[in-house]
Amino acid sequence: MAVYTEIPDAELVDYLKQYDIGELHSLKGIAEGVENSNYLLSTDAGMHILTLYEKRVNANDLPFFLGLMEHLSKNGLECPQPIPLKSGEQLSKLAGRPSAIISFLDGNSVRRPTPLHCKQLGEALAQMHLAGEGFEIKRPNALSVKDWRPLYNMSAAGSNSVAEGLSKLIEDELTYLESNWPQGLKTGVIHADLFPDNVFFLKDKLSGIIDFYFACNDMLTYDIAICINAWCFEADHSFNVTKAQALLNSYDTVRTIDKDEYVALPILCRGSALRFLLTRLYDWLNVPEGALVVPKNPAEYIAKLKFHQSVQSTSEYGADIS
Amino acid sequence: MAVYTEIPDAELVDYLKQYDIGELHSLKGIAEGVENSNYLLSTDAGMHILTLYEKRVNANDLPFFLGLMEHLSKNGLECPQPIPLKSGEQLSKLAGRPSAIISFLDGNSVRRPTPLHCKQLGEALAQMHLAGEGFEIKRPNALSVKDWRPLYNMSAAGSNSVAEGLSKLIEDELTYLESNWPQGLKTGVIHADLFPDNVFFLKDKLSGIIDFYFACNDMLTYDIAICINAWCFEADHSFNVTKAQALLNSYDTVRTIDKDEYVALPILCRGSALRFLLTRLYDWLNVPEGALVVPKNPAEYIAKLKFHQSVQSTSEYGADIS
Repeated sequence: MAVYTEIPDAELVDYLKQYDIGELHSLKGIAEGVENSNYLLSTDAGMHILTLYEKRVNANDLPFFLGLMEHLSKNGLECPQPIPLKSGEQLSKLAGRPSAIISFLDGNSVRRPTPLHCKQLGEALAQMHLAGEGFEIKRPNALSVKDWRPLYNMSAAGSNSVAEGLSKLIEDELTYLESNWPQGLKTGVIHADLFPDNVFFLKDKLSGIIDFYFACNDMLTYDIAICINAWCFEADHSFNVTKAQALLNSYDTVRTIDKDEYVALPILCRGSALRFLLTRLYDWLNVPEGALVVPKNPAEYIAKLKFHQSVQSTSEYGADIS
Repeated sequence: MAVYTEIPDAELVDYLKQYDIGELHSLKGIAEGVENSNYLLSTDAGMHILTLYEKRVNANDLPFFLGLMEHLSKNGLECPQPIPLKSGEQLSKLAGRPSAIISFLDGNSVRRPTPLHCKQLGEALAQMHLAGEGFEIKRPNALSVKDWRPLYNMSAAGSNSVAEGLSKLIEDELTYLESNWPQGLKTGVIHADLFPDNVFFLKDKLSGIIDFYFACNDMLTYDIAICINAWCFEADHSFNVTKAQALLNSYDTVRTIDKDEYVALPILCRGSALRFLLTRLYDWLNVPEGALVVPKNPAEYIAKLKFHQSVQSTSEYGADIS
């Protein structure tokens, strides 16, 4: 559930004068995005998203996020793009917070993706990876392999209360991944959080990708691994090979998956499963008082991690590539 | 803060087939309305509000609320109106709840109304009272004078913990109002909750009235009294006679305020202040566990009640009518 900062009327009217989008029609707080306050903003120029960046987002990262959306959009990816102020800036300030106005992207996320959705996802992900080339600002992944053990240490004491044997499972996996994490794979800008809520479809056709607030520079194939975890398992946590096959094959038609990327996929899937397991475990054990969010159960990612541990080779993900 | 019921994709697509508004573009949960789940629904036919009626709304009242919006809109009031199903019905069912699609009303509520806003409010309120004539379904006011003592009894034990002497203030007021509540004033359909969040303005011109889920049959002047309480006090709870004057004079230009209505206004203001004091007191003392809402402090309505108790005659509200 999003935060809602109250925006004083007069301040909003003045704020809009900095932009070339006409006058205010309506503003409605929307239930989208966990880290920021988001509003649907309608003006003479149509519908936009107004975002106030709340404390959990590092303001120093905003030029990366906003610049990236502009760069991707200019390079043909369907995604929201920042509306510039008259001054040419992308970032402004409203209600005491950094803020931006972003174009409105039509479409709706799907809660139960089909193989057809996964096929389109694969194409769009590869398009995003290509479109990200040449983007000059860099942002390291703050949640990669070296960050997982410190993150785990904050939850270690409570981990066995969540699932029996969880602490050993995680510690063994950390040790394994720290020694075996792939090196030298192709890197670039990755989305790093491309869950079904961040992909819009319009009449079953992918209409765009949103929410670049975890985007960073890392191995491109790690982004594929995140998508396999987020899109290719059923509600009972069983793996759906048809969906993974659709995702991988369609990705490969847009950006060829190299041999070494292909080989590394199972371990990247393990790493991605562990990364979401660790953040969910932390959130599960540290629900703030008066929280508006029910934390997601880490059990889902325990099951996914165990599945990937059982995988012997990438062919088990169903791809017709190698 | 509104409730958000998750709507399964396939169910939503099927649901829209019952209507003549084309296919789904997007659906976003919005932070509007406390009793229901509200979504901005965009389809081939444009923007709408989709409402799921949650448990706090009595389903038997829905034909009154929806029928009223249609009636008022047909009679020229700017307000949302239910989009009929192909079957002609206004009410349907989605995600296991009664539901309706309502037209989208452009505009934005103001948080700090000026006298100019109050002037437009007065006109619109009188227009609503006239437009409500001839509406055949009836709904008694469930929060009128006879309901206040039972409501108070549920909070009586805790009331002095909220403010010193509150229990005596309320008991004396109940006794006074029960003996002196006006009889025989003109009745009709009243909005009964016309706070600033329920009135939209577009470029400082009133664009419409929303949220008819407290509407009922009662004395028309009681609705004016509610608006005086909701619009004509400052943040420090001081009364702003300029705003009340603007509201009353403009109302009177559209629907004449009778002599007996004029005389009864101070006591109706006292009753209205007590009504909101009592519901806020109850909510304040009964915050449900895990609530998403910070209850409103009852102190505001203690101050307003005391102000109206001090009023000797309606002329103190500034109206140039009598």
